[in-house]
Amino acid sequence: PVMAKDKAVEFATRVRKLGQDDPRRVIHSLKVGLALTLVSLVYYVRPFYDGYGISGIWAVVTVVVVFEFTVGATLSKGINRGCATLLAGALGIGSQYLACLFGKQGEAIVLASLVFLLGATATFTRFFPRIKARYDYGVLIFILTYSMVAISGYRVHELIQLAHQRLTTILIGGATCVFVAIFVCPVWAGEDLHRLIAGNIDKLADFLEAFGGEYFQCLDEINEKSKTDKTCLQRYKTVLTSKNIEESWANWARWEPAHGRFRYRHPWKQYLKIGALARQCAYQIATIHGYVCSDAQVPCAFKRIIEAPSMKVSSEASKALRTCASAIKQMAEPSCASLYVENAKSAVEELKAALGAAQLDDSVDLLEIVPAATVASVLIGIVDRVEEVCEE
Amino acid sequence: PVMAKDKAVEFATRVRKLGQDDPRRVIHSLKVGLALTLVSLVYYVRPFYDGYGISGIWAVVTVVVVFEFTVGATLSKGINRGCATLLAGALGIGSQYLACLFGKQGEAIVLASLVFLLGATATFTRFFPRIKARYDYGVLIFILTYSMVAISGYRVHELIQLAHQRLTTILIGGATCVFVAIFVCPVWAGEDLHRLIAGNIDKLADFLEAFGGEYFQCLDEINEKSKTDKTCLQRYKTVLTSKNIEESWANWARWEPAHGRFRYRHPWKQYLKIGALARQCAYQIATIHGYVCSDAQVPCAFKRIIEAPSMKVSSEASKALRTCASAIKQMAEPSCASLYVENAKSAVEELKAALGAAQLDDSVDLLEIVPAATVASVLIGIVDRVEEVCEE
Repeated sequence: PVMAKDKAVEFATRVRKLGQDDPRRVIHSLKVGLALTLVSLVYYVRPFYDGYGISGIWAVVTVVVVFEFTVGATLSKGINRGCATLLAGALGIGSQYLACLFGKQGEAIVLASLVFLLGATATFTRFFPRIKARYDYGVLIFILTYSMVAISGYRVHELIQLAHQRLTTILIGGATCVFVAIFVCPVWAGEDLHRLIAGNIDKLADFLEAFGGEYFQCLDEINEKSKTDKTCLQRYKTVLTSKNIEESWANWARWEPAHGRFRYRHPWKQYLKIGALARQCAYQIATIHGYVCSDAQVPCAFKRIIEAPSMKVSSEASKALRTCASAIKQMAEPSCASLYVENAKSAVEELKAALGAAQLDDSVDLLEIVPAATVASVLIGIVDRVEEVCEE
Repeated sequence: PVMAKDKAVEFATRVRKLGQDDPRRVIHSLKVGLALTLVSLVYYVRPFYDGYGISGIWAVVTVVVVFEFTVGATLSKGINRGCATLLAGALGIGSQYLACLFGKQGEAIVLASLVFLLGATATFTRFFPRIKARYDYGVLIFILTYSMVAISGYRVHELIQLAHQRLTTILIGGATCVFVAIFVCPVWAGEDLHRLIAGNIDKLADFLEAFGGEYFQCLDEINEKSKTDKTCLQRYKTVLTSKNIEESWANWARWEPAHGRFRYRHPWKQYLKIGALARQCAYQIATIHGYVCSDAQVPCAFKRIIEAPSMKVSSEASKALRTCASAIKQMAEPSCASLYVENAKSAVEELKAALGAAQLDDSVDLLEIVPAATVASVLIGIVDRVEEVCEE
């Protein structure tokens, strides 16, 4: 029983942490519950129930399947579902008409081959990258509805009634979802994307800020300090793998109506470009990070030579990135970023000069210069590019 | 009409390319059509239809929703769907019993609050990363089925009949999917993962092989040659972003039964480890690639000095990676990889010596040594690690 209690406590802390990390998760869960309860009213309000009966179930299905974390995703799924149902329903009824012309025996064969043909074709279209990204769910619902209508064996006039009921219930379900998603503590994919990109650039700046201090301390200090600010150096890692999240959020953001500071047709693609540049920058940082972590002994004397200019390069680059990040956050021109970039560039010149001086000293192992020189020469280019794109 | 024709031709070539890139896509589409047609037989075979009637629709729904590209994904979705329906159905019927005790008025309130509570809780569990990865679909279906059963307003004895029908039809649909997925040209997620990982390591080897030739040619040759083998240098880029694919395939692979050379409980996690190492390696390569592409003028004289040892380092590292890749493909110990690693290590020593010699020559810009030195010192460590993990 003690072990079970421990486990329960552990579980509870994990649940709490999950909620604290992003309180919107809790709110989202409550919103789903709310939408479900709202839709279930359809069953309790007599006139509705008499009208729709068992078909009302589709409203519930729609809510469960369509309600997503962000407004954009919910809208995208809802619109996909609605349009696909409409189209597939119309096609299905058409197919039934067509099949009727072939007599009782031919009907089954015609319908079966139509289902095979349309099912296979629609499945194939799901492999197109662009359809996969935006209309995957719609195609799925298209196949589903078409097969259901074509196979069900109903007569046409029954079908039209069924189609009418299904469409209305899906509309009720979809409208409930969209209403709750937009008006009860909305989570906008666009805003999240905006924050993610700015946050990623901030994370890179964190690394550059902490890097100098971490790399240039000599062995005797390392043991005490290394545990304290290692987290700053780890944070950039999420940037490396954020591509998929960025892309799906940008996809959803496109479905969202104007909200807050975001107009309709906000240039979401710009974010993807900035994100890609930030990722390239993160790749370089991953290389440098390898050197910070490695046990390779670097003569302290040599580190001292390059310390000052390297520190300056990384801190100026870090400041430039931070300015860009806050400019993105406030949607302003990154005014003083170019100043920092200039500073970083002149620091690079200093670093080059220091390296040139070190070159004359034969006791130095050249391989150890690599990380500092890499950060210097590479970051300049990257910062430049980030700055370019910031001018949205 | 000419423009329309052009567009049609363009579209046709794109479709053909999509099919040629991976012919299994075409086969998959046909398989979905086949499964749909098979399930629709339920409607045409009289005894089935008389037994299930409109409930038979769930078999169609199951096929459309569950059938995925790989066997593992299909099995995972099918099992998730089956178990979730069973569990949610049982709970739903239990809730109906419970609600009956509260009289006509209380019933609706009790059911509505239960739906709210369970819907919200289940939605929240979807945020747990582990549940999200493996049971996301199951939880969705759980909410769906529970709400349907709890809300539908059926009496209990009707419900049991409905539940029985729904389970059987889902079983029919799921079994059809699994049968077609496994026995008609199966696509195994495990095999794809296996091939992806080996292919990724091969791509890294491609880069290293081509890198030397590309980087050390001087300006006059560049214009002619650069277009020919640039593709070798680009291929590694897919490795950078393959994390999500690897993870989902590894997830699906875990659901697959033993097949071909893969036993049940094959160490799929090892693949993820190797994949992560390959990705770290790719980050370094991205850094080097930046130098290959940059326009920075490097004195040819200096390039000549480091050319021979750098070429050797990268070609030996490339051979080591290639050996690892083919060892993974054949599931054998990478026997001669360690030999190449040794060669690469001794080449690094040569490169260091060459750099030491160059150091004395003051005309050299040190920053230009960076890429070569980076590739040398970093790759050794990476190749070592890849080799370690290859011993699965």
